[in-house]
Amino acid sequence: MLTFFTPGPAQLYPTFEKHVQTFIANQLGSISHRSQQYRDLHKFTVDQVRTLLNVPDTHAILFLGSASEAWERILFSCVELESFHLVNGSFSKKFYDYSNALNKYAHKQEKPMGEGFVASEVIVPEYAELICTTHNETSSGVQMHVNEIHKLKQKNPDKFIAVDMVSSAPYPDLDYSLIDTAFFSVQKAFGLPAGLGVWIVNEKCLQKAESIRQQYSIGAHNDLPTLWKNAQNNETPATPNVMGIYLLGKVAEDLNKIGVAAIRKETEQKAALLYKFFEKQSGFSLFVKEKTQRSQTVIVTNTEAPSADIIKAVKEKGLVIGSGYGQFKGSQLRIANFPATSTAQIEELISVLGSL
Amino acid sequence: MLTFFTPGPAQLYPTFEKHVQTFIANQLGSISHRSQQYRDLHKFTVDQVRTLLNVPDTHAILFLGSASEAWERILFSCVELESFHLVNGSFSKKFYDYSNALNKYAHKQEKPMGEGFVASEVIVPEYAELICTTHNETSSGVQMHVNEIHKLKQKNPDKFIAVDMVSSAPYPDLDYSLIDTAFFSVQKAFGLPAGLGVWIVNEKCLQKAESIRQQYSIGAHNDLPTLWKNAQNNETPATPNVMGIYLLGKVAEDLNKIGVAAIRKETEQKAALLYKFFEKQSGFSLFVKEKTQRSQTVIVTNTEAPSADIIKAVKEKGLVIGSGYGQFKGSQLRIANFPATSTAQIEELISVLGSL
Repeated sequence: MLTFFTPGPAQLYPTFEKHVQTFIANQLGSISHRSQQYRDLHKFTVDQVRTLLNVPDTHAILFLGSASEAWERILFSCVELESFHLVNGSFSKKFYDYSNALNKYAHKQEKPMGEGFVASEVIVPEYAELICTTHNETSSGVQMHVNEIHKLKQKNPDKFIAVDMVSSAPYPDLDYSLIDTAFFSVQKAFGLPAGLGVWIVNEKCLQKAESIRQQYSIGAHNDLPTLWKNAQNNETPATPNVMGIYLLGKVAEDLNKIGVAAIRKETEQKAALLYKFFEKQSGFSLFVKEKTQRSQTVIVTNTEAPSADIIKAVKEKGLVIGSGYGQFKGSQLRIANFPATSTAQIEELISVLGSL
Repeated sequence: MLTFFTPGPAQLYPTFEKHVQTFIANQLGSISHRSQQYRDLHKFTVDQVRTLLNVPDTHAILFLGSASEAWERILFSCVELESFHLVNGSFSKKFYDYSNALNKYAHKQEKPMGEGFVASEVIVPEYAELICTTHNETSSGVQMHVNEIHKLKQKNPDKFIAVDMVSSAPYPDLDYSLIDTAFFSVQKAFGLPAGLGVWIVNEKCLQKAESIRQQYSIGAHNDLPTLWKNAQNNETPATPNVMGIYLLGKVAEDLNKIGVAAIRKETEQKAALLYKFFEKQSGFSLFVKEKTQRSQTVIVTNTEAPSADIIKAVKEKGLVIGSGYGQFKGSQLRIANFPATSTAQIEELISVLGSL
């Protein structure tokens, strides 16, 4: 069996298989999505995610097909005319591209890959309705510290703020009294197969969507007012990915048993091991220079040797690591540090990398 | 174990569990969606679906989060200003509602639930760009015969035609030289857990989408040009539901081994058993009066007794059947007739219903 340190799809959570077997044994793939049995399952998952991420009742927790769909639904719901994007990698850039594709006026403040943002340097355009931030840029391994995200909202209380935490949730300890909407997908730090996006969104976004709808389309599929209304009844407008929702609830329950504080601490400890190794080891150099902006969940290192050679050598030992993104494909490694891989497994990876 | 005759989510295909175990054993939940391994898996599924449904190379086979998403993407791609909908139930009505929600001008020709359309009576508005048909109205058990759908296109060769075959594929033997786009979801006749929509679409739709995009938004997430471009490389723009795509390919392969002609014949034979029973049995009367418009995949009957009582009694024997839809919830039954349930199981259901 291989161990995956790839940044998504990633290593599956150790209890994944057990939960799939229960799903099958209980014939949950056949239950009606309009039954009480489904509503109980749905509510269980929402409650577990709410507990894990400390999401207050002011925010709904909604299900989409992917986090990319959340980009679109957030822009439809919170932006009548103008959005603003902090862009420092491929995924923050895609959020910006989506706004243009919806014929919104999209502003951006841009930094090269490998660099991040602090609130004090961000200049939000006057008419921007929504500030789009990326907590963790999966393409470059840059993290925007939650305090900086919080400060950005405090400096701009009249704007909506969205947080892409696709490849970091449940790590970021967001204060939802300052966050209007956030989203993630399950194939990253939750260690589940892809096919489900989770959208956390407050009532202010709902009101804005209802107001925009008076004049502009806010989309037809999974539009926020319809999703919200169905969620009040623990349902979804269309037939949902019941298996994905079930598995998310069970893995979130497993994580809650450990406790999110312990998971965050272990994440930091494992990240520290990796960063310490790459800093010292010849042949490697960390891509993100600013320490406070180094991702705790996706570690990116430059390689002197072609990264493909290292990936191949490591795979021979049963470990799978990711290549760099885009232009950095051949000269970087990306290593996921998600709850599904233990400290012992990270240590094994370091040992293998050290022996090359 | 229960046997599900519900119209979706439905009984899982008998080989479902075996394929899930293979998926787990091969760690396919962790593979990169940008790897050759994924592209091979993707291509396998597309090829199996293409064979099963006899889809020519003029049409791409694309993956979405659900069939409802296909409604939206088709309207974005094929309608600049005006669409036209044949409405005779809740799902054809939703397709129409989606067009309005996207601020298109949506025309409709409407019939009461339980009645269907033939091509000769359909009057397509002059400026409508797209004719939206529903091969199988899941809410009422009405089917539009494929010949009538084909005739509609032959009478209106300059219009696009879309076919909702959510709850009937692979039953309808569509001639894709006459069909611009069609779609289905996997939790119906393919006997898989929900969470994946399949969109079949030709190059003319792609060209139309590219033309509309010059002036209007065609959406940002899963827009047709981006989906199409990725599909050329056996990829998807966002991380897809890899497990759903894998399972669809394996079940389509199983169906291909039987042969689609045999599956269609068996579907008709099983439907005939059910219709014959309900026609004769006191306490029941068929909802769809016009024989040629009776669905072969979702059989709907009126009940004299409250349908909930019948559903409950049947469930005690381990069989799950569906209630009526909407206003007919209490006075009708809906019984799915999908490949996952055998002739013997249909006979068992008839025997149980006959003994009440």
